[in-house]
Amino acid sequence: MVIILKPNPGAAQVESLRKFLEQKGLQTHLSEGSNQTVIGLVGDTSRVDMEMLKALDIIEDVKRIQEPYKDANRKFHPDDTVVTVGDAKIGGGNFAVIAGPCSVETEEQIITVAKAVKAAGAKLLRGGAFKPRTSPYAFQGLRAEGIRLLLEAKKETGLPIVTEIMDLSQLDLFDEVDVIQIGARNMQNFELLRQIGKQNKPVLLKRGLASTYQEWLMSAEYIMASGNRNVILCERGIRTFETQTRNTLDVSAVPVVKHLSHLPIIVDPSHAIGISRYVPPLSMAAVAAGADGLIIEVHNNPACALCDGAQSLTPENFAKLMQKVENLRSVLK
Amino acid sequence: MVIILKPNPGAAQVESLRKFLEQKGLQTHLSEGSNQTVIGLVGDTSRVDMEMLKALDIIEDVKRIQEPYKDANRKFHPDDTVVTVGDAKIGGGNFAVIAGPCSVETEEQIITVAKAVKAAGAKLLRGGAFKPRTSPYAFQGLRAEGIRLLLEAKKETGLPIVTEIMDLSQLDLFDEVDVIQIGARNMQNFELLRQIGKQNKPVLLKRGLASTYQEWLMSAEYIMASGNRNVILCERGIRTFETQTRNTLDVSAVPVVKHLSHLPIIVDPSHAIGISRYVPPLSMAAVAAGADGLIIEVHNNPACALCDGAQSLTPENFAKLMQKVENLRSVLK
Amino acid sequence: MVIILKPNPGAAQVESLRKFLEQKGLQTHLSEGSNQTVIGLVGDTSRVDMEMLKALDIIEDVKRIQEPYKDANRKFHPDDTVVTVGDAKIGGGNFAVIAGPCSVETEEQIITVAKAVKAAGAKLLRGGAFKPRTSPYAFQGLRAEGIRLLLEAKKETGLPIVTEIMDLSQLDLFDEVDVIQIGARNMQNFELLRQIGKQNKPVLLKRGLASTYQEWLMSAEYIMASGNRNVILCERGIRTFETQTRNTLDVSAVPVVKHLSHLPIIVDPSHAIGISRYVPPLSMAAVAAGADGLIIEVHNNPACALCDGAQSLTPENFAKLMQKVENLRSVLK
Amino acid sequence: MVIILKPNPGAAQVESLRKFLEQKGLQTHLSEGSNQTVIGLVGDTSRVDMEMLKALDIIEDVKRIQEPYKDANRKFHPDDTVVTVGDAKIGGGNFAVIAGPCSVETEEQIITVAKAVKAAGAKLLRGGAFKPRTSPYAFQGLRAEGIRLLLEAKKETGLPIVTEIMDLSQLDLFDEVDVIQIGARNMQNFELLRQIGKQNKPVLLKRGLASTYQEWLMSAEYIMASGNRNVILCERGIRTFETQTRNTLDVSAVPVVKHLSHLPIIVDPSHAIGISRYVPPLSMAAVAAGADGLIIEVHNNPACALCDGAQSLTPENFAKLMQKVENLRSVLK
Repeated sequence: MVIILKPNPGAAQVESLRKFLEQKGLQTHLSEGSNQTVIGLVGDTSRVDMEMLKALDIIEDVKRIQEPYKDANRKFHPDDTVVTVGDAKIGGGNFAVIAGPCSVETEEQIITVAKAVKAAGAKLLRGGAFKPRTSPYAFQGLRAEGIRLLLEAKKETGLPIVTEIMDLSQLDLFDEVDVIQIGARNMQNFELLRQIGKQNKPVLLKRGLASTYQEWLMSAEYIMASGNRNVILCERGIRTFETQTRNTLDVSAVPVVKHLSHLPIIVDPSHAIGISRYVPPLSMAAVAAGADGLIIEVHNNPACALCDGAQSLTPENFAKLMQKVENLRSVLK
Repeated sequence: MVIILKPNPGAAQVESLRKFLEQKGLQTHLSEGSNQTVIGLVGDTSRVDMEMLKALDIIEDVKRIQEPYKDANRKFHPDDTVVTVGDAKIGGGNFAVIAGPCSVETEEQIITVAKAVKAAGAKLLRGGAFKPRTSPYAFQGLRAEGIRLLLEAKKETGLPIVTEIMDLSQLDLFDEVDVIQIGARNMQNFELLRQIGKQNKPVLLKRGLASTYQEWLMSAEYIMASGNRNVILCERGIRTFETQTRNTLDVSAVPVVKHLSHLPIIVDPSHAIGISRYVPPLSMAAVAAGADGLIIEVHNNPACALCDGAQSLTPENFAKLMQKVENLRSVLK
Repeated sequence: MVIILKPNPGAAQVESLRKFLEQKGLQTHLSEGSNQTVIGLVGDTSRVDMEMLKALDIIEDVKRIQEPYKDANRKFHPDDTVVTVGDAKIGGGNFAVIAGPCSVETEEQIITVAKAVKAAGAKLLRGGAFKPRTSPYAFQGLRAEGIRLLLEAKKETGLPIVTEIMDLSQLDLFDEVDVIQIGARNMQNFELLRQIGKQNKPVLLKRGLASTYQEWLMSAEYIMASGNRNVILCERGIRTFETQTRNTLDVSAVPVVKHLSHLPIIVDPSHAIGISRYVPPLSMAAVAAGADGLIIEVHNNPACALCDGAQSLTPENFAKLMQKVENLRSVLK
Repeated sequence: MVIILKPNPGAAQVESLRKFLEQKGLQTHLSEGSNQTVIGLVGDTSRVDMEMLKALDIIEDVKRIQEPYKDANRKFHPDDTVVTVGDAKIGGGNFAVIAGPCSVETEEQIITVAKAVKAAGAKLLRGGAFKPRTSPYAFQGLRAEGIRLLLEAKKETGLPIVTEIMDLSQLDLFDEVDVIQIGARNMQNFELLRQIGKQNKPVLLKRGLASTYQEWLMSAEYIMASGNRNVILCERGIRTFETQTRNTLDVSAVPVVKHLSHLPIIVDPSHAIGISRYVPPLSMAAVAAGADGLIIEVHNNPACALCDGAQSLTPENFAKLMQKVENLRSVLK
């Protein structure tokens, strides 16, 4: 951490600031230039409150040099984390595709789709029971009944299931769910992160619509600091000025976050782009960039999907895509 | 709502789409051009699922003409909503300033600040008991104890209190709180919005960091559709590419949202800019743009604040600002 | 184009608006709903000035249904454009890599790099002679001398050259240049676009830092409307809130722009990410998404490059990447 | 400037880096922590190329502590710059409003508007002769004839004129123009900035659509480093994710840029918001935030304006706004 002082700070004030910092167990290094005086801090700065420092009278600015996350930081945990769910492994060279409908609608629908995606090579089944919708008038999901239907589909196909929790009050319903998804809008719901961190089920943590890599990793840190290390990150598009796509897929997140962290990272091209026609090329891009998996919306009758039909693939198109992804992965090794 | 069809749609398909739409109680108007066929929809389209339509084979795009919110829409409720809290009124020409520390720290601190902001003209007291912090290692607020201290300050000064809820499980603690704040990160926590809408206390709904005006008003609609019409909107800066300020205050939100909705709108310059030096000019800008109030961080010793000290005013500077705001309001009438 | 009228427009005013629009050769379709009156326009609306319409008293909003570009629009030109430069072809299934240093520095440097990238499979040589730099104190390029050195390298290797023009006054120096690059900062320098459109050399049109797909295609339209149809589009990252990467590569631009337009589109991963370590995974992502080519910075001694060294590959790393790209392309066919 | 080294750098490499930096006349300060080694640089770092340093093998990151601009920096020039144009002064407590139509259309139009804005208190006349338009099919301005008509209006009213240059080839036509405007799209047209800096006429430098404060001040630095110190900055809205307004007015730019630089800063609410109804509240906000002036579009018949009619005020509304602005300024002093 580097502290930049305001021009011409008083010597006594500087000395008192250094003492204050050294009492916190940090070493200080002073550089005095003609225009600028700077104090460098050495030691564990992850618990130093930058905002508090910025409020001090003699300080102009504070810049962090070291990342504020520890459990999620590759510097302290160089080996890739591998998350295991049933027979599937994600991370550390292991790749898995999660597929299924946006919303669970009926038993027939979810079982049909589950069988189709399994046949095409998907390792996990996704499906929304609790649905975050912008409008209070839109379909909000089958809720408890949706989870029951997912468990039916799991029984039928053996696929582990991934589904989103929207509020802590729903946690009891997730007992038999294999992977708990935390959606983009809840990425900074810190109470939820903390509580989910106290159980040991794998967590799929989607990146917030306007969250930086660092904020995303800090949210993973919340879960990990509570004890749960089974975190899978999921890039799902960020909000930009472009209006022809639902969001902008930030494919750079894959190599950059893999450099910063040991956690596995997968990509959700369906929500990123919002238009099914573009899901295959973006899936290929994500895999080529090194993603540890994909999560893709598949619906047996996209035109009738109760939500997000626009971005779902048919089972046929999904099977074609899986073949292409397999070919691609064969040349990446 | 306008539906744009793909080039050269089959006549039978178009006819079947029109029937489908008309069964939903909408009138359809067909325009056939040489390059483009368009269907206009007339009627209550707020319950039509655009995503579902976009997934249909013959449809290229769907554009909404009418706003999807009703309870929050000025078109259907032309008169300004006035929210009353104790002696204070907000909206419909009534103006109020909410002030206090970012976090409640000690009884002495909150009572000292409460007295100071009351003396300077503030009508409500703010203070964080539950604090959403990016880092799990940063101070998270005094929680239940923080609310107890706020209630002490209320008893001492008579100022109604405003404080943030972070999770539904905390709701019981908010019994005597006057205004429940929903923070920017929870603006689309739909379960929370729905439940908060079932009680009748005024709600301060902050705009999400990357939320459009329409999404913000849709979140207000969640609360209102559950029965609670006492919603105060609060612009607190949006995320942009600029890095020298914490966020970018979107002052245009004031006149634009006032045109779209009848709800009162106030501005939080402290969180928007994040640097106390700039809070006074931005407060003035917000008032000049027509805001119904301000919410400002004030701390008796900003350099020691446990969080966000960098953006707090001292009581002295706050009092000076209140004087300027009063002068400004006198020429706006 | 759809015109949304303000509530309760006068019948006479509506009639006079329709006459005005019909005199412009457009058909009008009126839909009157209880809340909203809408006029649909059919015909060639690319020359209708939306802003002018929005200023009319009775109009609330205007939405464009059809794209405002014609020459660049795939709807009117369904076949892929193929741009030929020397032996290289770009577009319509043809793929080419452009490589070279950010700036031309010395004859030895440019010739060494040219030979290396040719040996690795690059089809064109890039190198900056005129350099747009944020700071007036940074190296601004060798200018005329830089172009002379590029031509030496072309003579030596046979590689056609691509280099950026910054101002019309430099055009005479580009006589023997094979492809004129228009940089991101000049994407809306309309005088430059218009003049470059009057000559027939291929143009590499980079996307502006904050330009939508539509604005980008409108800039291509400027060049094409002046007569030059040899336009190659280049995605090079957009500006977002993320600060760990120089820009955010918008890989979705590849399939979306290919759907909207028949022009070839290539990707510049070096400028998008700004850090050489991430150039290979992003190059792979771009190719997997369907890009018609890549433009990559290569420098024989990146640590000494006079600008943008941080994002240059060594010739060895470039050769390895070219091998991977070839393998990837073999499975995409 | 602070250089962060990669973990465990070799001692010899560190020593050689320090020598290299010291040869550039900088002092170096080394801080070695258990996780991180950092080198602080003291001296004139404005000419150090950060990108070049980032490319060095042992360097992980480089952070700038000091601003890279000097002539535009308030630290080195504490007194406000005052720009004088005819009888008007802008900056240092002096306030002026520039008003006129988006485009010059006819002699009658420009003279009528000039007289009206003068009567209402405007000190300068604006009007577009060369118009940057997104579409090649939209009206591009009267060009040379437009400048002739502006000069007629100047003769008639005595108002100095402000108009935009789009390309260096037009410079001869600007001989009698009082203030040369550089538009948002040309903010980083560095050849243009450099040449405009070689003449001594005041320059109105608009902020680019996606430019940071620092990039904007670096563009001012280009003009100033060429010799011309008469630079007026103009905030005109930035591009964000919000779609209901044309751009997002960044009113914080006023106090922040005034803190960073001594140059005057004015605000263009018309282009920022794009809808005339909102121009008055945003003008008030800009003045309350401390702007040194406003530039406002006024048209005698907005509904017929050849471009941007949607954002123009009528002379009547402009006169009302001027009265309000005067009242506001009276309480700000």
